[in-house]
Amino acid sequence: MSFDHLHKRIKARKCPLAVELGLSPGELPPQLLESAQAACSDPLEGAAQAVRTFDLELLEALAGLVPAVVFPLPAYEQLGWRGLRVLEEVIRRARELDLFVIVDAKAGDEGEAGRAYARAWLGKTNLGAAQAVPFGGDCLTVNGYLGSEALRSVLEVCREEDKCFFALVKTAGAGAGELQDMVAGDRLVCQVVGDLTARLERETGQYGYSRAGAVVAAAYPSDLRALRKRLEHTFFLVPGYAPGMAQDLRFAFDPYGRGALLTAAAPVALAWRETGGDYREAAREAVRSLTGELRRYVTIL
Amino acid sequence: MSFDHLHKRIKARKCPLAVELGLSPGELPPQLLESAQAACSDPLEGAAQAVRTFDLELLEALAGLVPAVVFPLPAYEQLGWRGLRVLEEVIRRARELDLFVIVDAKAGDEGEAGRAYARAWLGKTNLGAAQAVPFGGDCLTVNGYLGSEALRSVLEVCREEDKCFFALVKTAGAGAGELQDMVAGDRLVCQVVGDLTARLERETGQYGYSRAGAVVAAAYPSDLRALRKRLEHTFFLVPGYAPGMAQDLRFAFDPYGRGALLTAAAPVALAWRETGGDYREAAREAVRSLTGELRRYVTIL
Repeated sequence: MSFDHLHKRIKARKCPLAVELGLSPGELPPQLLESAQAACSDPLEGAAQAVRTFDLELLEALAGLVPAVVFPLPAYEQLGWRGLRVLEEVIRRARELDLFVIVDAKAGDEGEAGRAYARAWLGKTNLGAAQAVPFGGDCLTVNGYLGSEALRSVLEVCREEDKCFFALVKTAGAGAGELQDMVAGDRLVCQVVGDLTARLERETGQYGYSRAGAVVAAAYPSDLRALRKRLEHTFFLVPGYAPGMAQDLRFAFDPYGRGALLTAAAPVALAWRETGGDYREAAREAVRSLTGELRRYVTIL
Repeated sequence: MSFDHLHKRIKARKCPLAVELGLSPGELPPQLLESAQAACSDPLEGAAQAVRTFDLELLEALAGLVPAVVFPLPAYEQLGWRGLRVLEEVIRRARELDLFVIVDAKAGDEGEAGRAYARAWLGKTNLGAAQAVPFGGDCLTVNGYLGSEALRSVLEVCREEDKCFFALVKTAGAGAGELQDMVAGDRLVCQVVGDLTARLERETGQYGYSRAGAVVAAAYPSDLRALRKRLEHTFFLVPGYAPGMAQDLRFAFDPYGRGALLTAAAPVALAWRETGGDYREAAREAVRSLTGELRRYVTIL
């Protein structure tokens, strides 16, 4: 079961923290962007090459420390097809480095488009006589507003390919609660989506988690704690981890330190802005510090 | 206002019907796929070239008949970055042919990823000293589960670029109602998202519609009629139009035949399977027939 593969990596690194890559061009170290642009006549290609360099260097720097990496799809889409070509290459390299690859695309659809979404990011595309792997990620985020058909399209590909997914259950942004915290029947809307996801897949892996995970933001620790109790076989992706949050977020994990992966974006990828030094070393140092804090509250068995 | 641009095209063609492209490789006319694959050593590239040929030929065949074209993103993603390169080219050609381009990506996010999503499909990306247009669509679908921040990220780019979007309100697939038809407070969840979308943008264009539209599936005509009354300044994208539905779907439009665009996928793009003839001519004939049926029930002023 695919979350078993993730947990093994978490256990090996003693680190339940993923790094999110995908900086926008304006967030990259300026000298990196400028030198890539100087070498390319096409401005989108120049920016894509700068993102490629930054991502590949951070993957090399962090692969021994973190178990997983998150790629926010829009960061690559905003560079046009050149950004997607970089994403394909960077995903391949991450997997070579034994990192678990999470594609954060937050889409999902019904019918053929729903199946195509799952094939694109996790599976194989049928090409008449042949088949091919388009992007080859390990795990995909899915928006459940379209209900169980959209989730099931992804789940079916996950079963075929031994992959997994995270349904968006509770997100962090301003206004996320407008819908997610409404009471629908005797539950909150985010609980409805959580329950729907949990019901979809009863089979669990060796650590007790199914292929159908849930995104639950770090921003609301009490909701996280309540959802952890409610959804005992659902692996959580917890975006938005930052220094000082470890104590609050320990409830994302089960008593064995399993069932959750926290993610950090800016605190790692933009750590160089604080330190002023080399961005690879700054990212490593940030990961060491964040992991150290987590280890004080979470023991991973 | 951007839906004005769409309505002008609808009025000029006397046709409120968009065609959805983006067939999966296995759905393409077999000889087209085979000849493209024979010319390419890379199987994804071969399939992408076959999709490119089919799309470009259908655009040429239909540009005088329909006002708009819908591109379901996963259909292109499943061909890897090569599929996205084709999509970029096909979007450009559609706009040259005076077609209104709707990217059906059904995503949406908060923070920088939310803004990047909007820039990718509708706007410009900042590349340090320069800016560039990644895909350049006119309109984008957005999943509103993340609340108003995700919608507002897209709306802001729409205001800058004179573009528009459709929030997913009521979709068609099996299980869509599991969440969308729940009662939350005194409203259905789909009404909550519809109201949220409508409240986001009060400014309307010359035909009375704002930049913030809604996806409302053709599959539930009575819901469509109720939502039309509820959301009087919200332009509707109505996917799933097929022969025989025009009478039921006339309530998608206001009394002047404005405020809605129906979309047809398989009835047009796969029409050649029924007729056995040339796929361009089959598509043209299908569009003529579907439009003729619509004109009996909807008069466009």
